[in-house]
Amino acid sequence: MSDTTTALIALDWGTSSLRGFRLSASGAVLETRASGHGIQHLPEPGEAGFEAAFSALCGDWLEGAPVPVVAGGMVGSAQGWREVPYLACPTPLAGLHEAAERVITRAGVEILLAPGLIFEPEGGTPEVMRGEEIQIAGTLAGQPDWQAGSTIVLPGTHCKWADIRGGSVAGFATYMTGELFALLRGHSILGRLMSDAPTGESDRADAFARGIALAAEAGPGDLTRQIFSTRTLGLTGQLPGGVLADYCSGLLIGHEIVSGLRGSDGAPIVLVGSGALCTRYAEALRQLSGQGPAAIIENPAPAGLHRFARDAGLL
Amino acid sequence: MSDTTTALIALDWGTSSLRGFRLSASGAVLETRASGHGIQHLPEPGEAGFEAAFSALCGDWLEGAPVPVVAGGMVGSAQGWREVPYLACPTPLAGLHEAAERVITRAGVEILLAPGLIFEPEGGTPEVMRGEEIQIAGTLAGQPDWQAGSTIVLPGTHCKWADIRGGSVAGFATYMTGELFALLRGHSILGRLMSDAPTGESDRADAFARGIALAAEAGPGDLTRQIFSTRTLGLTGQLPGGVLADYCSGLLIGHEIVSGLRGSDGAPIVLVGSGALCTRYAEALRQLSGQGPAAIIENPAPAGLHRFARDAGLL
Repeated sequence: MSDTTTALIALDWGTSSLRGFRLSASGAVLETRASGHGIQHLPEPGEAGFEAAFSALCGDWLEGAPVPVVAGGMVGSAQGWREVPYLACPTPLAGLHEAAERVITRAGVEILLAPGLIFEPEGGTPEVMRGEEIQIAGTLAGQPDWQAGSTIVLPGTHCKWADIRGGSVAGFATYMTGELFALLRGHSILGRLMSDAPTGESDRADAFARGIALAAEAGPGDLTRQIFSTRTLGLTGQLPGGVLADYCSGLLIGHEIVSGLRGSDGAPIVLVGSGALCTRYAEALRQLSGQGPAAIIENPAPAGLHRFARDAGLL
Repeated sequence: MSDTTTALIALDWGTSSLRGFRLSASGAVLETRASGHGIQHLPEPGEAGFEAAFSALCGDWLEGAPVPVVAGGMVGSAQGWREVPYLACPTPLAGLHEAAERVITRAGVEILLAPGLIFEPEGGTPEVMRGEEIQIAGTLAGQPDWQAGSTIVLPGTHCKWADIRGGSVAGFATYMTGELFALLRGHSILGRLMSDAPTGESDRADAFARGIALAAEAGPGDLTRQIFSTRTLGLTGQLPGGVLADYCSGLLIGHEIVSGLRGSDGAPIVLVGSGALCTRYAEALRQLSGQGPAAIIENPAPAGLHRFARDAGLL
């Protein structure tokens, strides 16, 4: 069987989008498709909606020889196709399949759904993830050093910091940084002075760095005081409206990284994601620790789903 | 002149409301009125709107012998009746009148507008207030110990912590705690699990205390991680929806107080405001410092405006 033959169909099925990957036996991505049929945007309600979204995206991929199908993400949540209970940390990434659940379509296609993870630190508050564990598995595939010890950071609406030790997710934390920034820009008094006026790239970068520098000085509890400076620096004309969003973003990302670095204990940090946001996290890491990320991994979901399928014995 | 004779009309004129006080020479409040004519809700645009709002509220108070009129708050802002520049801290509270500005209505009534304060700490970010300085002046009236050294805390949308030394506002800080709580409850994923289901008062108090306790453990930058626990404690059934708002409120107020106490340096803390919010701050203070506020002062604006008028030589 050549490595251009379809050996696995892998789905990254989130809340607002569905991505499908046609993979070879070795995990090469032969084709990628995406639709807006996230689990909260299905073409019809109930189980039939999941089937319809799946068929619409990659029904034709199944017309030839039958191949296994795996899926990860919110599709396994309580609002998903079938609820797959959380696996408790520490979780060996090679053991995700042990908690997987199977759904079978009316056409007889079996789809193996990956579990999410839960972390309940002693005396602390619980943490949950669903979908990121697949991206983490993909990030670590073929990286024995990172498997031994690393911190995987997945920037986004709710950024996850996962502590990897000996091939397991030892624990993780969630930062609401992305959602908080969107709230402050869109709905708070801070957003009123922010403008989209064309502003030089270096002025924006300076404002972002200034926010990070202020975060570096923060003591416990200082965030709600520091973010108000987004307004007063604008009011007093010390920062123009066109850079206030960058300043506020630097402050929030800076706070997150100051906190996250304390938990990462000097392990190499790997950023997962794409584009401008990861670049910002990399800049903030450099400014706050003197060291950038070990790598930025753009789309590890197909590799993670491939590994999940292989561990489950489907390949 | 008996102490039931009107000697001063004092206005506390904010963004969304206007309050008027008829005061005696000694500062006794003879009558209080309020209207919705805050500076952003005037009956007509421009200067005429201010005059109309003023006449509607207390025109009849001026029908007898003429008495002086003073006002504080947003009425002196750039969006107010006349902009009164900020006074720079440290500011002696007895000197507010030196920066005051006068408006004269078409009927010839003079109104003395109080300035706001600005604080620009060296190497820090600027802070501004407008209206709170009057409440602080009223809180300190007749309180030589607090004038010598205290921290005045004014909970609200944007909570101020003012550092009082030797009768002056030495500096102050603003915490966006109230606005942030409203945003998180009304617009974030955290609000989705919060419910108004009838819940026992002691369960709510316990959840509030639990949020404060978590805030006490926070290191720098931990807020955006800790607030996400509002969701996970709800998701995992460890806290019912009816107490999640209390938990989140405890976390946010706790963070503010942890930060504010570092700046207060052991000075007595005086809370300014009314009702449930001040009670919550008092509880959080007790939990975090072992000591409650020196006092809760409910409505110091009339006393502050009286003092401002007296310092200005109007009484």
